[in-house]
Amino acid sequence: MQAEVINTGSELLLGLVTNTHLGYLAGELAPCGVTIARQVCVPDGPPIREALEAALDRSDLVFTTGGLGPTTDDITREAAAELLGLPLRPDEEILAGIRQRFARRGLPMADRIARQAMVPAGTEVLPNPNGTAPGLYFPPPVLGGHRARHLFLLPGPPRELRPMFVDHVLPKLRAVLPPSSFRERRIYRLTGIGESQVEERIGKQLEERGDLEVGYCARPSEVDFRLIGPPAILAETEPAIRAVVGEWIYSDGAALEAAVVDLLREKKLTVATAESCTGGSLAGRLTNVPGASEVFLAGYVTYGNEAKENTLGVPASLLAVHGAVSEPVAVAMAEGARRVSGARYALSTTGIAGPGGGTEDKPVGTVYVALAAEGYPTVVRRCYFPLDRVTFKHMTTSAALDLLRRRILGLPLELGGGSSSPRLG
Amino acid sequence: MQAEVINTGSELLLGLVTNTHLGYLAGELAPCGVTIARQVCVPDGPPIREALEAALDRSDLVFTTGGLGPTTDDITREAAAELLGLPLRPDEEILAGIRQRFARRGLPMADRIARQAMVPAGTEVLPNPNGTAPGLYFPPPVLGGHRARHLFLLPGPPRELRPMFVDHVLPKLRAVLPPSSFRERRIYRLTGIGESQVEERIGKQLEERGDLEVGYCARPSEVDFRLIGPPAILAETEPAIRAVVGEWIYSDGAALEAAVVDLLREKKLTVATAESCTGGSLAGRLTNVPGASEVFLAGYVTYGNEAKENTLGVPASLLAVHGAVSEPVAVAMAEGARRVSGARYALSTTGIAGPGGGTEDKPVGTVYVALAAEGYPTVVRRCYFPLDRVTFKHMTTSAALDLLRRRILGLPLELGGGSSSPRLG
Repeated sequence: MQAEVINTGSELLLGLVTNTHLGYLAGELAPCGVTIARQVCVPDGPPIREALEAALDRSDLVFTTGGLGPTTDDITREAAAELLGLPLRPDEEILAGIRQRFARRGLPMADRIARQAMVPAGTEVLPNPNGTAPGLYFPPPVLGGHRARHLFLLPGPPRELRPMFVDHVLPKLRAVLPPSSFRERRIYRLTGIGESQVEERIGKQLEERGDLEVGYCARPSEVDFRLIGPPAILAETEPAIRAVVGEWIYSDGAALEAAVVDLLREKKLTVATAESCTGGSLAGRLTNVPGASEVFLAGYVTYGNEAKENTLGVPASLLAVHGAVSEPVAVAMAEGARRVSGARYALSTTGIAGPGGGTEDKPVGTVYVALAAEGYPTVVRRCYFPLDRVTFKHMTTSAALDLLRRRILGLPLELGGGSSSPRLG
Repeated sequence: MQAEVINTGSELLLGLVTNTHLGYLAGELAPCGVTIARQVCVPDGPPIREALEAALDRSDLVFTTGGLGPTTDDITREAAAELLGLPLRPDEEILAGIRQRFARRGLPMADRIARQAMVPAGTEVLPNPNGTAPGLYFPPPVLGGHRARHLFLLPGPPRELRPMFVDHVLPKLRAVLPPSSFRERRIYRLTGIGESQVEERIGKQLEERGDLEVGYCARPSEVDFRLIGPPAILAETEPAIRAVVGEWIYSDGAALEAAVVDLLREKKLTVATAESCTGGSLAGRLTNVPGASEVFLAGYVTYGNEAKENTLGVPASLLAVHGAVSEPVAVAMAEGARRVSGARYALSTTGIAGPGGGTEDKPVGTVYVALAAEGYPTVVRRCYFPLDRVTFKHMTTSAALDLLRRRILGLPLELGGGSSSPRLG
């Protein structure tokens, strides 16, 4: 079933507010078997009617956001009523509710506020406990000869729209859409493997079944592999997916750092970090996770050589012979961090983030990531992420987190595949 | 002049990626006298042609984003060429560039990659140093009878689109749009003061002049104060703005951490960090700035009490008497970091990021920020940012950076105004 979303609001087109409605609605509608086939953003004013007419003729479901407020440029309600030839009538209950809201806050109520209590004949009111403007549902009878069977007018502010969607739109959809259309969504988040490898190893094969919707979303170091389909089919395919790409799957939704912190908490293990090129970002990612304080002991951002020597005990000779960006220094940093902090594990990073500092042997983007672990020899990996500074840091810290994840889970300590090869273009 | 933006990409409609193109393009186009009158998002595939045709007939300028890549669903280039009846020809220079990119990284180049080197006759190539797919500019002659005079096809990833826009689209617009439409945009970035205070102190007064467009964009800890107008008027108003809100202005575009690193580099000063609750984010922000290695010596993420004692020499008695989240511990951390690193300045943070750990005296969101500086007594400030963990860390690190900025510039060391008072609702 295909939906169309019409966002109104000059603030969106002026770039003052980022449009987050599309992502929210898409996520909520997918398990209902509804795909958003088109989204359009029009300014407050006459283009709304035109967009509404086109959408009603093109899609099964139409959602509008915004334009339900009290000001003169809020005309979504009026445009829809006029287009469908429905007279507007004041709804006493809404009016009483709005009056109460104003009275409670001791504010005078301007006449134009009452506009929000006007309801087109034959439509249903969707209550808005978080604002004055209610939403509206237009059922099939009032949509007449249009293709669309359902039209929802929703408020613009996300903190009004989202609760209304959960409390009133979803129940309505469950009541009016065929039960067979409802499906489940499952997301596998992977790192260390490229989108195309996931597609080749399992995605194509699942796509060919014909009863699953297969999708990918690649970000630096990460792939989200997404399946939508009947719950039974999703459960059935799970073992096959785990069998071929299981070791790269780090969560079903949580960020990599959250997955790693959860593993550490679960097994009561501790970690420290020693960072050069990533400059605190690795510690920063770990400590973004609530509860990180249970497992994260300390981080050392040893940017200069002196700090590497003084804080972590990296031998000056090692720095002189191999340079700060080298395998032996990465190893010494990780081992030093473990020794100084007393943590079970320590991760280190040393590399050339750029834009300056590259050499022929070690071009900008070269980085060493090491993991020192109690009871194991320290491992170190060389990666190459020739990208902007922030992406370089993100990919390097992901490689480090994945190394730790793999060590904890007893998986092969490879950082191969997609993670070391950033996507081009 | 009216523009229309067509975003392609199923990942946008599926809600996997937030559409940030609209905000970016709106901001860049405003000083060119161009307003975005409509934005539409269509899935990869046939709807692109239909959207393109409608847009070319409706608007003066059309921008597409996405669909220029190598896979079969990337069809924006082909759809535009077909719609306008332009034959596609391989561009040897682009092809050589793509080949080089792959060779440099030792990756094999699939045949379909070459699609990205196809160029519709009569169009101009917009180079893409950050990806394989170049952009394309369609000048008036190839747009024939359509209303639109200029069509730009831009890549989907923001890190490719944005540099291309600045380096190639803006110069082109300057060459083809009437000079009278161009205005200048000036952005003042402020921290430590709220949006409404900026409006009250100077914004209203400038708005009343009538010859300037005044805008605000508030983010946690920051306000962008934006003026668009004739260059002479902007130059004339500058002293008045500096006179009333000058001390809160940290840059005309650069991030706060970049402004601070620039100040340190300019004056050849060094800094170190000692972080508890911000967990490496302060070091991370400083080291996001290219050239940070010249001024940033070391960072200590002393999350646990032991690390605070061992690494920074915070007395155990201080921790026992006052607790880790306290003024004396913040001071001891900053002074310890300065002593251990030998830096001219050291910043420290200790607080309660939440969700757990709050008390009646020190609720979640309480944080102390201290600055130790050679030749000055150490200063410490208590702030309160009762927000989600990531926002809390951002606001705390901003407060620390601003304290250092003010010290270097000899400004009052107040963290008052908007920065300590998070915006509610």
